[in-house]
Amino acid sequence: MELIDGKAVAAQIKLEIAEEVKQIIASGGKRPHLAAVLVGHDGGSETYVASKVRTCEEVGFKSTLIRYEDDVTEAELLDKVIELNNDPDVDGFIVQLPLPKHISEQKVIETIDYRKDVDGFHPINVGRMSIGLLCFVSATPAGIIELLKRYEIPTAGKNCVVLGRSNIVGKPIANLMMQKAYPGDATVTVCHSRTPNIKEICQQADIIIAALGVPEFLKADMVKDGAVVIDVGTTRVPSTETKSGFRLKGDVKFDEVAPKCSYISPVPGGVGPMTIISLMKNTLLAGKKSIY
Amino acid sequence: MELIDGKAVAAQIKLEIAEEVKQIIASGGKRPHLAAVLVGHDGGSETYVASKVRTCEEVGFKSTLIRYEDDVTEAELLDKVIELNNDPDVDGFIVQLPLPKHISEQKVIETIDYRKDVDGFHPINVGRMSIGLLCFVSATPAGIIELLKRYEIPTAGKNCVVLGRSNIVGKPIANLMMQKAYPGDATVTVCHSRTPNIKEICQQADIIIAALGVPEFLKADMVKDGAVVIDVGTTRVPSTETKSGFRLKGDVKFDEVAPKCSYISPVPGGVGPMTIISLMKNTLLAGKKSIY
Repeated sequence: MELIDGKAVAAQIKLEIAEEVKQIIASGGKRPHLAAVLVGHDGGSETYVASKVRTCEEVGFKSTLIRYEDDVTEAELLDKVIELNNDPDVDGFIVQLPLPKHISEQKVIETIDYRKDVDGFHPINVGRMSIGLLCFVSATPAGIIELLKRYEIPTAGKNCVVLGRSNIVGKPIANLMMQKAYPGDATVTVCHSRTPNIKEICQQADIIIAALGVPEFLKADMVKDGAVVIDVGTTRVPSTETKSGFRLKGDVKFDEVAPKCSYISPVPGGVGPMTIISLMKNTLLAGKKSIY
Repeated sequence: MELIDGKAVAAQIKLEIAEEVKQIIASGGKRPHLAAVLVGHDGGSETYVASKVRTCEEVGFKSTLIRYEDDVTEAELLDKVIELNNDPDVDGFIVQLPLPKHISEQKVIETIDYRKDVDGFHPINVGRMSIGLLCFVSATPAGIIELLKRYEIPTAGKNCVVLGRSNIVGKPIANLMMQKAYPGDATVTVCHSRTPNIKEICQQADIIIAALGVPEFLKADMVKDGAVVIDVGTTRVPSTETKSGFRLKGDVKFDEVAPKCSYISPVPGGVGPMTIISLMKNTLLAGKKSIY
């Protein structure tokens, strides 16, 4: 069993991005600039955005954090989005989700200029990904693909089971894994809450990508020997062992599943660190105008 | 075994659309208007476009056919697309594919205003479909969904195998079948040219949607008793029995598969007739501004 060390891969990619930024600056280019809009004070969102801003600094990007209180109106937020769309200095930006209930997330996402949509949530980017065109791929699926690539895990013709059909993980990673590409070219099955026989389906999988958000859902008796398991679960559970008072639990019962795997990604330290670094990669692509 | 009679369903929907058009006109509304752009003289394209124009007449739509010779430049064609985008009388339009090699189909598709993209090929419509938002769903997958609905075929929790991963059938129908919806909520597996064990996968399927474009690919020993089989194949093979000199062959070896099925759609007369009628439905939606 080999552990997929997302933390180490992310650190390596961070160095690669930092090096490329240095070269861009040395040759007189513009420093990539990521803006992040944060509404309210949700604990998770605060942590994620702070981490994104810090990573920007580490790789040499310019970053701008725009904060609103919970009572910002939808109109105000949309005005800011339009301002960022039109700001030539901003290469890419994100609006951290979730948003307060009185604001339509979908409207905000669709108002973002898809050419600056480094989160890859705009329908144009989702659609282009499905068709197999260049686009901003959203961070979590992009991070999974990068891990498979860096570990040179074979995917062509493999039986890949995706657990979960969310718009931000399940559906896009299923789409990517079926593309004519590497990683990709897999036979892809998408299971979800309505699937009656998940256990039997998982038992036949060469690759399992677990993104249900159900802690320790995937048990040893659901995994065949030699399988590759990617754990995308990040459920916060209370914990007395951490100073934050919680810890992250994956969708995989790691201790019993790991011994059966050829490769497995842990939680934390697997897909998680790749998510932010994928956002950085998208920002670099946006800065270089590599996609649009 | 019940035959899924796409011809009869299409005829029924045609009546429903014609009735709705009558009501729109009676209440002083605008007659839906579909424009079709046809480049060159490809036999298949001529037939399809003629059939679309004829169906427009039958349901009471206004239609406009715009023809170009094979040597039309990409710039000329794009200018026409932009003109149609801006023409307030045109509710929706299609550019019949395939196009000559010197013209980028993708560029043409992306130039079409997605609000008039009744073929549902624009990345925005593809992306919105994947996310589960209202959109123009492309005609063939929309036709399949409509057949499942009209025959009240259960899909929730069913094991649905899609053969083929094309952008116009395999990927979109897979996306639709996994949505939280009816028809949908199925466990979806997408098989393709790189899948080594298609036979075993098909044997476990409750629903098989065959869209590989390989005549008579699906044989009796690949189908379990009681399965639902939807045949999307339309390969033209030479024939001395028809005056056109060819006939359509499906992806299913119908004679031997049919007796095992609970439902099966034939070729011709299954999905085919639904395709044009789905385009008409999209045009009606465009005329009523129901989506955008």
